Amino acid sequence: MTVHTATCTAPVNIATLKYWGKRDKSLNLPTNSSISVTLSQDDLRTLTSAAASADFQEDQLWLNGALESLDSPRTKACLADLRALRAAVESADASLPKLSQYHLHIVSENNFPTAAGLASSAAGFAALVSAIASLYELPQDMSELSKIARKGSGSACRSLFGGFVAWEMGALEDGLDSKAVEVAPLAHWPTMKAAILVVSDDKKDTPSTTGMQSTVATSDLFQHRIHEVVPKRFEEMKKAIVNKDFETFGELTMKDSNSFHAVCLDSYPPIFYLNDTSKKIIKLVHKLNELEGHIIAAYTFDAGPNAVIYYDEANEAKVLGTLHKYFAQVQGWDKKDASALNGGVDIDGVDPEIYKGVSKIILTSIGQGPQKSTQSLINEQGLPKN
Amino acid sequence: MTVHTATCTAPVNIATLKYWGKRDKSLNLPTNSSISVTLSQDDLRTLTSAAASADFQEDQLWLNGALESLDSPRTKACLADLRALRAAVESADASLPKLSQYHLHIVSENNFPTAAGLASSAAGFAALVSAIASLYELPQDMSELSKIARKGSGSACRSLFGGFVAWEMGALEDGLDSKAVEVAPLAHWPTMKAAILVVSDDKKDTPSTTGMQSTVATSDLFQHRIHEVVPKRFEEMKKAIVNKDFETFGELTMKDSNSFHAVCLDSYPPIFYLNDTSKKIIKLVHKLNELEGHIIAAYTFDAGPNAVIYYDEANEAKVLGTLHKYFAQVQGWDKKDASALNGGVDIDGVDPEIYKGVSKIILTSIGQGPQKSTQSLINEQGLPKN
Repeated sequence: MTVHTATCTAPVNIATLKYWGKRDKSLNLPTNSSISVTLSQDDLRTLTSAAASADFQEDQLWLNGALESLDSPRTKACLADLRALRAAVESADASLPKLSQYHLHIVSENNFPTAAGLASSAAGFAALVSAIASLYELPQDMSELSKIARKGSGSACRSLFGGFVAWEMGALEDGLDSKAVEVAPLAHWPTMKAAILVVSDDKKDTPSTTGMQSTVATSDLFQHRIHEVVPKRFEEMKKAIVNKDFETFGELTMKDSNSFHAVCLDSYPPIFYLNDTSKKIIKLVHKLNELEGHIIAAYTFDAGPNAVIYYDEANEAKVLGTLHKYFAQVQGWDKKDASALNGGVDIDGVDPEIYKGVSKIILTSIGQGPQKSTQSLINEQGLPKN
Repeated sequence: MTVHTATCTAPVNIATLKYWGKRDKSLNLPTNSSISVTLSQDDLRTLTSAAASADFQEDQLWLNGALESLDSPRTKACLADLRALRAAVESADASLPKLSQYHLHIVSENNFPTAAGLASSAAGFAALVSAIASLYELPQDMSELSKIARKGSGSACRSLFGGFVAWEMGALEDGLDSKAVEVAPLAHWPTMKAAILVVSDDKKDTPSTTGMQSTVATSDLFQHRIHEVVPKRFEEMKKAIVNKDFETFGELTMKDSNSFHAVCLDSYPPIFYLNDTSKKIIKLVHKLNELEGHIIAAYTFDAGPNAVIYYDEANEAKVLGTLHKYFAQVQGWDKKDASALNGGVDIDGVDPEIYKGVSKIILTSIGQGPQKSTQSLINEQGLPKN
């Protein structure tokens, strides 16, 4: 049997200007533009192999070792778009195999726990689209492919690029102008680092799609956020990135995280993602910046209690040293020498038990976009190797 | 020696449309109008005696048994205004004693712990102004006196009335139109009840004056709240009160509490008053209302984690019964028979340890405005009796 395969990796991205609100639910068209930093795939990535064969009986997906449904309208929309692009390629060159007509086997694995609430769906759909686009040898550029990933999971479109990425909301009803673009590549500001504090939480968060719909429908402050606050911040943040101005970048990042959680709280019933540990981390970061006299660390929180703290490598001794002072008992420090972690400062009034609310620390940095990989997860029969 | 005395009580009020933001700090002029419910003085009140005598050497204040400074500009402003009004009375009738020229002794006691964060300054300034106005036999009505109380503590102006009270923000720079007015008296809707859940908290809250200033200066969403959201809600809430429409009153009350905390969170650095226990109480109330199919209980939170839950007496069995189910171990239920507390419903997903975050429950109801009292706290020498 002939099995055509391709394998790609894709990164996680963490928004610094938040996506919250859809103007079209089925196309995942947002109510505002957003900006993110792509994180290193050394620490967080999805690896996806895609295979097509005339011998496959149906489309199948294995995710982290388990067979998963491909029936969701979102996944189907992605596959249909990719097949249509492949069909166009095939119709231009009759010598090509008719992969667009074959069923697909897709095998995908994360190098981090899905449950940690770390934007795994963004990396997942970005890797899915990248792997199939590679298998299909599609000529489209990443911005074009980002429109397909967007249909799978809105923020997935931003994982098609490395470095700093903007998702331009677009204005068209069909979403053809709602796509990711590069603000600056990894090489522009490679010293951007991130410490992720995985915060333990006993409750189930409101799923982000449900939460967004509720905010759009009920928050009185939301319209002001999307029409007045975010458009201005979008331009300011892009400029701060281009200028490598951490101070401005950090302030805007923290303000936008707070603005996003404010409109969640203003929803009816209110939506809460930050817990008491998240709030203690926010206060710690503000006090550290205050002690320094300027912003050297910037927190951001997605639809959950986990903190992502961005900082420039130049301030690593102070930022990581201070975090280590309060979270030394948490796992995740082993990639750093002890000597790299003793530059912290004492912060007044930090709860000495703050570490109990954090289950894991992930030290990472800005990273690259999707990469082709030779590490196929699919064997010659088109089935998962493991 | 001749000592002239008068004694008044004044109530606590809890806003249902929140005051947050000053347009003039020294005059306590607000950025938006607000609405409150006055609570019963059986449970929460300040009792204040004021005395004037030619023999007193200085103005003195005893608060809950301790000598306190009268040097704050706010207290001085109140005393100066009251003396000016008394002087006008005296100049119209030469036979009256010249109380405006005498020093004052003021003795004040709360029937509840000041530390509980229960708007004690509102009751305190309302009682101070009422007692001195009574001592001075001032002809001004309560709305006029409310402007003086407002200078002491903004929300104190609303404690000059019983029932449902609006603080009209006014437009004048001198604040002469920024005053409290009655929306409806106690007798209009005497079945309005309140359960106060005093929530334990380890941290010191941002003082409300500091917090307000920060929100006004830094929140991007705040201007929308005061210019668009509150003015509409102000009219709607007054109408709901006039119509005794608990459903609308409750929904607006909850939404406005959330809107206020949202602009706190949108401040920079963010201000947090709700803690994890507060959030659990919010969820419990929403789930109770959901089970009932309509709103029978409405929470509101001031600048701290304490919950005030309003409900109509008609639903007391269900509302108090449900609260009792989850907070039976907390003190404060003794004024109710056990039989009055067994009408509660089971709420899905409530943390069985939620009661651990609450230190006390105060069961109270809507109440009257300031009252003259014969229970003087001052002896014949013009000193505290105790």
